[in-house]
Amino acid sequence: MLALTILGNNSAIPAFGRHPTAQVLQTQDEAYLIDCGEGTQERLSEYKVRRNKINHIFISHLHGDHYFGLIGLLTSMGLLGRVNDLHLHAPAPLQQIIQLQLDAASTVLPYTLYFHSLGGEGPIANDKRVWVECFKTVHRIDCWGFIFREKKNPRHIDPEKVKTYEIPSTYYEALQKGQDYITKKGTIISNEEVTIAATPPLSYAFCADTLYTESLAEKIKGVDLLYHETTYLKDLHERAAARYHSTTIQAAEIAKRAGVKKLLIGHFSSKYETLDEFLAEAKEVFENTELALEGSCFRV
Amino acid sequence: MLALTILGNNSAIPAFGRHPTAQVLQTQDEAYLIDCGEGTQERLSEYKVRRNKINHIFISHLHGDHYFGLIGLLTSMGLLGRVNDLHLHAPAPLQQIIQLQLDAASTVLPYTLYFHSLGGEGPIANDKRVWVECFKTVHRIDCWGFIFREKKNPRHIDPEKVKTYEIPSTYYEALQKGQDYITKKGTIISNEEVTIAATPPLSYAFCADTLYTESLAEKIKGVDLLYHETTYLKDLHERAAARYHSTTIQAAEIAKRAGVKKLLIGHFSSKYETLDEFLAEAKEVFENTELALEGSCFRV
Repeated sequence: MLALTILGNNSAIPAFGRHPTAQVLQTQDEAYLIDCGEGTQERLSEYKVRRNKINHIFISHLHGDHYFGLIGLLTSMGLLGRVNDLHLHAPAPLQQIIQLQLDAASTVLPYTLYFHSLGGEGPIANDKRVWVECFKTVHRIDCWGFIFREKKNPRHIDPEKVKTYEIPSTYYEALQKGQDYITKKGTIISNEEVTIAATPPLSYAFCADTLYTESLAEKIKGVDLLYHETTYLKDLHERAAARYHSTTIQAAEIAKRAGVKKLLIGHFSSKYETLDEFLAEAKEVFENTELALEGSCFRV
Repeated sequence: MLALTILGNNSAIPAFGRHPTAQVLQTQDEAYLIDCGEGTQERLSEYKVRRNKINHIFISHLHGDHYFGLIGLLTSMGLLGRVNDLHLHAPAPLQQIIQLQLDAASTVLPYTLYFHSLGGEGPIANDKRVWVECFKTVHRIDCWGFIFREKKNPRHIDPEKVKTYEIPSTYYEALQKGQDYITKKGTIISNEEVTIAATPPLSYAFCADTLYTESLAEKIKGVDLLYHETTYLKDLHERAAARYHSTTIQAAEIAKRAGVKKLLIGHFSSKYETLDEFLAEAKEVFENTELALEGSCFRV
């Protein structure tokens, strides 16, 4: 199970009740916070996301609308008595920015904050149910996207079949891992015969801020859910390029090229009061598109 | 004219729809922002305070609930095309914290930000209609309060009297400044005879976060409006002292000792859902007390 809640969907300046970028991806046990614009701690309360479930935070880049809410969240977690370790995956300069602010307040967090600098591309976190990799996008400053992939789920035991073949329960774990069973007489019972395939692992890609670039499609190929920024409508493609951002149809084009199942769009410019046109334009190119509206929850 | 708008009145963690400390004091022409907790830029929009009127920002101390909204406001002002100089009066370490964040984003503000470090006590700003002084409070880290005093208003010319004494209009400016008029025959017409006293200058003191300490009363003696923190109700005076904060009756005691006209209380702990008891307790000691409710505007 992967479920994504949108906490903020606006670019740079808060406007029309929309807030800067923040999302939370939840599995059965954990929550992964992706970007943390100003006010994210309030959105977490508003949408009832338990902050104790968050053990990893990912910050795509150091433009303020993607991280100015982080220091407030970190200190509030401390004030609320957090003791569990917290892992922060972010561009290197953020470490000093956080430390200076803690020092200025004479604050020592009551939990351990592990800082993991983003560098190249590839795996960055290996958790109980998901592993996370990062990739570079093309933006005015260093910027990373993140892919969350569920780990392969164990196969299910077929209760009728294990009875038929009289397989002792001590072998079940091996069967779930995909091993065949060999009877005392030496007959091989194939794994497929006595187990049922698990749900295929799901994947979510967060594309952060980026200039339109075809190479991105290769990096996120075939994910189940893709979030891609659409700061502008299609008529402003020149402004989008000048500011290292994307338009509606560019995001949809990436979704199509990458063969993803579903596209979510967000990071809307503060110049737009309504968002209907964003959806209509993206759907022209990629039908299965939705707006990343604040408070919405998307089951991957 | 001095008018104070409350943008945030809560301590540390946002709770029950209350936000961390921020206030804006307005004269006819200018607005002075006092503290800037997370989300202040949104509150400014909500309460329709024109951010272009803000040319001075005062930060009392570097606990996050008093300044985590500043970097977002400064960068938004830049994105919105501000060109006017901005003066920031704050504890010294804030300068590096801001600069690091601008550098990390490769941002150069399109306006000049003058940083004025708070050091001792005394005058820190001399503006068109007010002068501002700072004083130290007693808190866990260095912390300053601020007093805003209107400049003496010029006396008003009495139109009937200047006619009677045939005083030429070229003398009016001198009369407004308090000078007497001497006729060609050498007769002295006293200033009081031909002018009317202006409204007495008003004053506002913001007491920031502080432990209860009688010496504070001396520093803010006789101001028209006093804001004093009341993080806790009176029964928690020990906790208040341990955390360098004040209770309701301590704030009221300071107001009484200082002989102020009116007391505003705020910086309520997130443990309290309702605020009625704060008002009731403070009024036991100082009758003319009001709660600093968010969005309220107080004419000094």
